[in-house]
Amino acid sequence: MSRRSRCRSAAASAAVELAATGLARVIPVPELAVIGGGQLARMMQQPAIALGIDIRLLAEGPDVSAAQVIVDHEVGDYTDLEALRRIAAGADAVTFDHEHVPPAHLRALQDEGVACRPGPQALIYAQDKGDMRLKLDELGVPGPRFRIVEPDAEAPDRLRSFGDEIGWPFIVKTTRGGYDGKGVWRVDAVHDLDDPLSVVRERGARLLAEELVPFTRELSAQIARRPSGDTVSYPVVESRQSDGICVEAIAPAPGLDDELAEAASRIALTVAEGLDVVGMLAVELFETEDGRVLVNEFAMRPHNTGHWSIDGALTSQFENHLRAVLDLPLGSPRPRQPWTVMVNVLGGSVTDLRAQRAIALAAEPDVKIHLYGKSVKPGRKVGHVTAVGDDLDDVLARARRSAAVLTDGGEQ
Amino acid sequence: MSRRSRCRSAAASAAVELAATGLARVIPVPELAVIGGGQLARMMQQPAIALGIDIRLLAEGPDVSAAQVIVDHEVGDYTDLEALRRIAAGADAVTFDHEHVPPAHLRALQDEGVACRPGPQALIYAQDKGDMRLKLDELGVPGPRFRIVEPDAEAPDRLRSFGDEIGWPFIVKTTRGGYDGKGVWRVDAVHDLDDPLSVVRERGARLLAEELVPFTRELSAQIARRPSGDTVSYPVVESRQSDGICVEAIAPAPGLDDELAEAASRIALTVAEGLDVVGMLAVELFETEDGRVLVNEFAMRPHNTGHWSIDGALTSQFENHLRAVLDLPLGSPRPRQPWTVMVNVLGGSVTDLRAQRAIALAAEPDVKIHLYGKSVKPGRKVGHVTAVGDDLDDVLARARRSAAVLTDGGEQ
Repeated sequence: MSRRSRCRSAAASAAVELAATGLARVIPVPELAVIGGGQLARMMQQPAIALGIDIRLLAEGPDVSAAQVIVDHEVGDYTDLEALRRIAAGADAVTFDHEHVPPAHLRALQDEGVACRPGPQALIYAQDKGDMRLKLDELGVPGPRFRIVEPDAEAPDRLRSFGDEIGWPFIVKTTRGGYDGKGVWRVDAVHDLDDPLSVVRERGARLLAEELVPFTRELSAQIARRPSGDTVSYPVVESRQSDGICVEAIAPAPGLDDELAEAASRIALTVAEGLDVVGMLAVELFETEDGRVLVNEFAMRPHNTGHWSIDGALTSQFENHLRAVLDLPLGSPRPRQPWTVMVNVLGGSVTDLRAQRAIALAAEPDVKIHLYGKSVKPGRKVGHVTAVGDDLDDVLARARRSAAVLTDGGEQ
Repeated sequence: MSRRSRCRSAAASAAVELAATGLARVIPVPELAVIGGGQLARMMQQPAIALGIDIRLLAEGPDVSAAQVIVDHEVGDYTDLEALRRIAAGADAVTFDHEHVPPAHLRALQDEGVACRPGPQALIYAQDKGDMRLKLDELGVPGPRFRIVEPDAEAPDRLRSFGDEIGWPFIVKTTRGGYDGKGVWRVDAVHDLDDPLSVVRERGARLLAEELVPFTRELSAQIARRPSGDTVSYPVVESRQSDGICVEAIAPAPGLDDELAEAASRIALTVAEGLDVVGMLAVELFETEDGRVLVNEFAMRPHNTGHWSIDGALTSQFENHLRAVLDLPLGSPRPRQPWTVMVNVLGGSVTDLRAQRAIALAAEPDVKIHLYGKSVKPGRKVGHVTAVGDDLDDVLARARRSAAVLTDGGEQ
């Protein structure tokens, strides 16, 4: 009996041994290369299986979320150009689980003929919130008033004067590396500047000061865009955050004014076209008390606020991301029922998700469970659940109950 | 940079080399073992990814359909008990892509404490159509009149007398090994017995003679059953065959009388309970001109006539198969829209499915495409497509158009 031989081994001697036993085979050429092995790459694999798309993955480790479900993967570092080159070799396109690949590497790949989707001309704006704000301004997209503060001796004064001009409290963010509420501060008074300023001193971080927008809720507008410019726009959803982390999303956003929904979708289209984004783009917005939408930030990949689409839309954001980056015709993003609610499973008191899954399915057998194969840490995104139906209150209640069972055993 | 090391290599020397480089890791314990690497196992992997179920696969070769998408796979022979033991080791349950594993092996595994689902007491009836008919009779389930003909010198006379008693023409099948129309003959006259009788002489095959049922159409009733006996019944679908191969399925069966639908579902439940089936069971039936349903045959696994459920039901047959064999609460099988049509992609003049996929998506962007990663051979099942909607004619037309583009470039 012969054992599997599809695996790619870097240990040359081992490969020679395998070859000697007659088990070695030609490594298949992937259709798509994906950089980063988180849950977004994992969830790309489901439509990839359906569409017959062979993915080659660059994973951060042998056990990361996507490496568990993509056969052709290599463990490596996304800052290593050689690793990127090996993963991209022969693929029709390269896409990403995250936005952190160095732009210089992406430009090098592009110069070698690799189709990076989205490309560095777009990704740079997702990597730096300061540059993002400047670009949004240039595109005429409405956002909060802001000031970029360079990491120099003037920083404290410039932050204080920003507050004095536009009003206290305001928001301060590092322009790079923050996510899920990390690297974001609310500044009520001068002494609240100590934390962000210490990051300036310690890491030379550039800061972005932003007006604290009096918003009623947060929205997300998603769009898929092909290299040719073809797009499809998902219905605008309401997203609910806690401590800067998305906890749930409702599709479509309940009671959203048609004109505001159109304005949000138009903003997403403006950003996608203005930056020549290819793939999925998510624009997170504030709906203000005075009936406007202002851009909070954006991401160029499938996004947490779009996970509802797996079970709720005719074509999921993951399938349309694959279709967009491979320049295939896009599918309809329309909802399959009146309401879809997605609730994140954030690491809580439950540590054995496999055992808890049975209890969650018993409690809510028709809520769709998505687990990411990640170990549980407090607050970590380890899965999500989705409920669909005609009655929003019922759909919300079922999704929250299922997520609560997976998070804390049922206590909400 | 380290390369992936999740792969399991049988070449001991290679494993040692890998260990020497520090890349070897403990093989993860799978939750579910799946025997057979066809498209059914491949399509189990999509809900397995969602539910966080680690599958270990025994594959017929390194490139078979499911081995392309299940990381933890081993190439081996399902008639090799040692291979079965290795795949099953540590798994909560073992299930199957096909029904061909020797029952003696399954009993040996059971004796060693392995949960085979379905078990040998059920699978033996899916392996032999003669035994299946006898068991159905014992369960009081209606079917065509039949006679089992042993491979001896009396066989020609017994077949002739069967025809004289119940009327010509009639149907002859080998009791084992036939599928997709192979090993099935329509006997109009005595000389048509030559082909089946030559199989008796050459292979000692037992034959099953069956009344040719004057049916108006074929139906399929599917049920999912847990070890505890909990079941859910899918809506009865109409399946359309050509040369003994399923070409399309419509869910639910258009215009089916409520009582007949109930009768069909009741038959599936009777079979599932009578044989203690765990997992998915599909019962294929004839709807007769005089308004009865008769069992044609059954299969104890996800079934071609249930592929519609991936895109058309709240819980797909593949997800409910996983949930049933792992003794998890079952999900609702209810359709998500009035009509779902599944059309098979059978190997035709199109050989490059990857290239053709773009054309099919351009023609019908909202028809869901499922490709199995198999090379194209004439008539081989290489994929399927599914359309959903409110208007049956439109749904049928869209699904057929998409399948035609993938099969023959568009000519129907």
